[in-house]
Amino acid sequence: MSSSAANSRRGAVQFWSRTIIPTAKEAPADAEAPSHKLLSRAGYIRRVSAGVYDYLPLAWRVLRKIEQIVREEMDGAGASEMLMPALTPVEFFEQTGRAEAYGPLLFRLTDQHSRTLALGPTHEETITELMKAAVTSYKQLPLNLYQIQTKFRDEARPRAGLLRCREFIMKDAYSFAMSVDGPGGLGEQYDAMYKAYVNTFTRCGLKFAVVEAESGPIGGSASHEFMVQCESGEDTFLVCPQSGYSANVEKCEIGQRPGTFDGEPTGALAEVHTPNMPSIEEVGKFMGVKPIRMLKTIVFRAASPAPGGGGQGEGQSSPGRQAGASWVLAVVRGDHDVNEGKVKSAAGFPVVMAPEKEARAAGFAIGYVSPRVVASKSDVLLLVDPDAAQTGFWATGADKPDHHVKHFNWKRDVGDVLCNEKRVRITDIRNAVAGDPSPRAPGAKLEARRGIEVGHIFKLGTKYSDAMGFAVLDENQTKRSVIMGCYGIGVSRTMAACVESSHDENGIVWPAAIAPYHILITPLKVEPDGPAMKTAGDLAARLAEAGLDVLIDDRDERPGVKFKDADLIGIPIRLTIGDKALAEGSVEFKRRSDTQGKGELVKFEAIVSRCTSAPR
Amino acid sequence: MSSSAANSRRGAVQFWSRTIIPTAKEAPADAEAPSHKLLSRAGYIRRVSAGVYDYLPLAWRVLRKIEQIVREEMDGAGASEMLMPALTPVEFFEQTGRAEAYGPLLFRLTDQHSRTLALGPTHEETITELMKAAVTSYKQLPLNLYQIQTKFRDEARPRAGLLRCREFIMKDAYSFAMSVDGPGGLGEQYDAMYKAYVNTFTRCGLKFAVVEAESGPIGGSASHEFMVQCESGEDTFLVCPQSGYSANVEKCEIGQRPGTFDGEPTGALAEVHTPNMPSIEEVGKFMGVKPIRMLKTIVFRAASPAPGGGGQGEGQSSPGRQAGASWVLAVVRGDHDVNEGKVKSAAGFPVVMAPEKEARAAGFAIGYVSPRVVASKSDVLLLVDPDAAQTGFWATGADKPDHHVKHFNWKRDVGDVLCNEKRVRITDIRNAVAGDPSPRAPGAKLEARRGIEVGHIFKLGTKYSDAMGFAVLDENQTKRSVIMGCYGIGVSRTMAACVESSHDENGIVWPAAIAPYHILITPLKVEPDGPAMKTAGDLAARLAEAGLDVLIDDRDERPGVKFKDADLIGIPIRLTIGDKALAEGSVEFKRRSDTQGKGELVKFEAIVSRCTSAPR
Repeated sequence: MSSSAANSRRGAVQFWSRTIIPTAKEAPADAEAPSHKLLSRAGYIRRVSAGVYDYLPLAWRVLRKIEQIVREEMDGAGASEMLMPALTPVEFFEQTGRAEAYGPLLFRLTDQHSRTLALGPTHEETITELMKAAVTSYKQLPLNLYQIQTKFRDEARPRAGLLRCREFIMKDAYSFAMSVDGPGGLGEQYDAMYKAYVNTFTRCGLKFAVVEAESGPIGGSASHEFMVQCESGEDTFLVCPQSGYSANVEKCEIGQRPGTFDGEPTGALAEVHTPNMPSIEEVGKFMGVKPIRMLKTIVFRAASPAPGGGGQGEGQSSPGRQAGASWVLAVVRGDHDVNEGKVKSAAGFPVVMAPEKEARAAGFAIGYVSPRVVASKSDVLLLVDPDAAQTGFWATGADKPDHHVKHFNWKRDVGDVLCNEKRVRITDIRNAVAGDPSPRAPGAKLEARRGIEVGHIFKLGTKYSDAMGFAVLDENQTKRSVIMGCYGIGVSRTMAACVESSHDENGIVWPAAIAPYHILITPLKVEPDGPAMKTAGDLAARLAEAGLDVLIDDRDERPGVKFKDADLIGIPIRLTIGDKALAEGSVEFKRRSDTQGKGELVKFEAIVSRCTSAPR
Repeated sequence: MSSSAANSRRGAVQFWSRTIIPTAKEAPADAEAPSHKLLSRAGYIRRVSAGVYDYLPLAWRVLRKIEQIVREEMDGAGASEMLMPALTPVEFFEQTGRAEAYGPLLFRLTDQHSRTLALGPTHEETITELMKAAVTSYKQLPLNLYQIQTKFRDEARPRAGLLRCREFIMKDAYSFAMSVDGPGGLGEQYDAMYKAYVNTFTRCGLKFAVVEAESGPIGGSASHEFMVQCESGEDTFLVCPQSGYSANVEKCEIGQRPGTFDGEPTGALAEVHTPNMPSIEEVGKFMGVKPIRMLKTIVFRAASPAPGGGGQGEGQSSPGRQAGASWVLAVVRGDHDVNEGKVKSAAGFPVVMAPEKEARAAGFAIGYVSPRVVASKSDVLLLVDPDAAQTGFWATGADKPDHHVKHFNWKRDVGDVLCNEKRVRITDIRNAVAGDPSPRAPGAKLEARRGIEVGHIFKLGTKYSDAMGFAVLDENQTKRSVIMGCYGIGVSRTMAACVESSHDENGIVWPAAIAPYHILITPLKVEPDGPAMKTAGDLAARLAEAGLDVLIDDRDERPGVKFKDADLIGIPIRLTIGDKALAEGSVEFKRRSDTQGKGELVKFEAIVSRCTSAPR
């Protein structure tokens, strides 16, 4: 437990019989994720409707402890707490394009006066609207405001209990600055949040990684994800074990890889008829070629920057575009995935995946496109991943429907245009995979990890302030858009992620900092005035005095039932009061995390110091 | 400030420049209530849409302090905190009839899968559904569970800022017991909540009254309202200054009043043509009779008990009904209001206001009915309020459309049926008014007070458990419906009510216990390393060490602006650091509530003890 919580307050004492902990042998039929099963079985949560849960008293205690850690770290980092409403005029989201971007995920309702309201999934718009009215001078900035609040998102398929919900608890913070760099700038605010997040998840007792990320639908120019590491995690990210560099699959850079168009043909170009084979695996199987020896060519077209989009550092010069390219072909190996973000930066101008109809009209045999097209079409820019620019055997499309070719050779089949740097470039345009060279440590290889995202911080830039007209005069009397950042923590998700990463076959194993109670006292006989109950009460009072939260299992149940439930609900320390130990002035001390040991007799006098001493 | 908050924790220190307190000279155009005006002007709240508000950092600090007091008192009374979702399947409300009872007040929305969800206005149904699954034995009861949560109610006309909102913060608790009386029964739970509420509002520093109330649309058999007393309050209640008895207008009993049908006629019965006069005032004016000398007769008809309704003690014997009465006439003085609840209990069987069409069809000249009808219709029960059963001049209806009579005399015009106790009774059937005799202290008179309801406790009985099939086996293996209570506190409303009852023309005057900060330090010069700012920082650290929350006004503004804002935001103690006092090692100490004094110089060494000493 963190020192600030331990010594400054008196702990709580609760009797099992006076609260509701409905443990169960069976998990709900739809539960698959360990956290969903265990939180349900241990009486922490109960489903009200799809993706909507009751938090029972034990869960609520965990959530409040997480909230308190978040609050202390946010306050410590200079943020101010407030609360915005869930009901939000839908016009707010229309102004920034998020009504459309969220689509059906945005819960909408119509009020008595036929006005449409949305239930806030996050609050960029609401706070920008507030700050626009409240901030009239650059002197009021920088500021960072946060709230811990219930959010709503109409997931089509809520799943995994609290991991993908329709109603959930989130901490969201929003920072406002006049500059990106320097004192009081976005960079400083972002770094302070980064540190606060590291502190928060460390204090929660979680094993987590900080991962570089694309900013996703919220927009902006830089972001990090905080991932609780666990095998059941739905997200994959990559780690360089040598440098510590971590990034998610979309964002991850890849170290130097040699690529070349040199190399002799492996045979004469041979056309194969490959009808009705929608996947590269099927084509490969039919042709007897592994995807690793096939080239995949994705067609993009130049796009104008999205209206209202573009934060810090976006929308700069467009060298390729200036050269007149209307199309970009991205070529990767058949077992790799093209990364749209990398294609955009390699192209140097905004691109979008080409709509099929449009591409066909322009003469691309979609599904059967080969790199050869660049030779015949002057408005095409060809980007080739280094792993695809290699010598040896290649199969690829035949540039006509239902046909592929074998023995494709770069030099022979594409020709001199390969030497024109304005038309063809070898560059990283794919998602990283495990085994790729690290971009930070020569010789090191990236490793894949799985995790659950519990925090995400973004440099938003001026996306929202531009869209909503939030600008103030700077010290030179120049009106400038306010520069924003936003910073989220999934509070209810953190609870579930902790269970995913810390449990065994018998139940949850809480870290002390966010355990609902630190100590579970289990008297084996529960006569109201009997010695076991009296001892339980005395011990609880002393432990509470020392700042520890205590639950007393005063149910009239068999010891086996109580021990099973104790393991299930996962309180870090169990003190068992049996007749024999009692006669010696002792109780049995056992850590939940210690699955081997049988428990250890500790004298009454020594209990408090034993329970408050490290390690937890 | 309450002792438990003061000494156990370190106080907060905040700089004005690092948070957002957008004070304003003008209140929003739609603001009329003092709390709406002041909370807006002082930068506590901002309207997002009708009845939907942002709580800015100062407001959020007040709300969290109220919440913490509520939480401590609820926990102390043995209740367990949890959290239920806002999204609620509409079927829950349909099962108990509340979907219809709430009508348009219930926010409804349709999700991606075309299912209808409601936003919970309160959570009787959700918790009953949970407990039905979680409680399988009487041994698990009694229990009391509560949450502090955002509620939704689609008010047609939200008004007065936080006093009548569409989204608001409420504490709602629900108790479950196997019996009404005895240990662990509803009565004991209700009494514990009553005490917890008294403690809560006392600790919040509010002047409040506990008022007996009808239970209203939630149903049940007993309830009390907790009213913050203030002139601007929308609710009226009555108080006996001698006994302390308080009740709302609907519930308030009235002391003994003599009533008689004796007395000689004041003249011959005279018919007056009174067409097109919908109100008793108009009729009176036209006839030259004051309402105090007119009889108002309201027609009720017998009703079967509502399905699913009826809690503890309802639906008992029906003496009048046994006598065959289908109609009940309730007669009160023209300046009084008939009380439907009192009519029901006086009748001894369930009644409803008679639909006009039905009453006309049965021969009642609605709008012109007189007590004489009882003589001609054998299925009528006549209930007469004592103030209407008096000698002297009376005007009343003529029992035919558009006509009234003067010189009505009870004995002459109604006759012998007045002596038949089964047909005619003199009994209290009206709302109490100021000046009525107290029901608790002979000779004392009731006084009217105005207030704002901030808490309400109800004995629900089995209304919800019956409707939702929540019954468990008792110790005799008999299945019995669980007996419920529910207990609400308007948390955001309490903040506004406090402002209504504690402000002056310059701003808010917070009681220390729920003030956002206890101390406002106002350095008159704000050079970063100047002596005033240094002293402010040192003082703040020492005050925080003593458990006090401190705000430092570090804005580079004129003293006049700072003092005006200080009065507006209402921090209980202001410490002003000016050059002259500083030179003497002093600061100026001033209480916000002290509107006369000029402030008092206090030496640095004495500041902490001065700030922590009573009175607050």
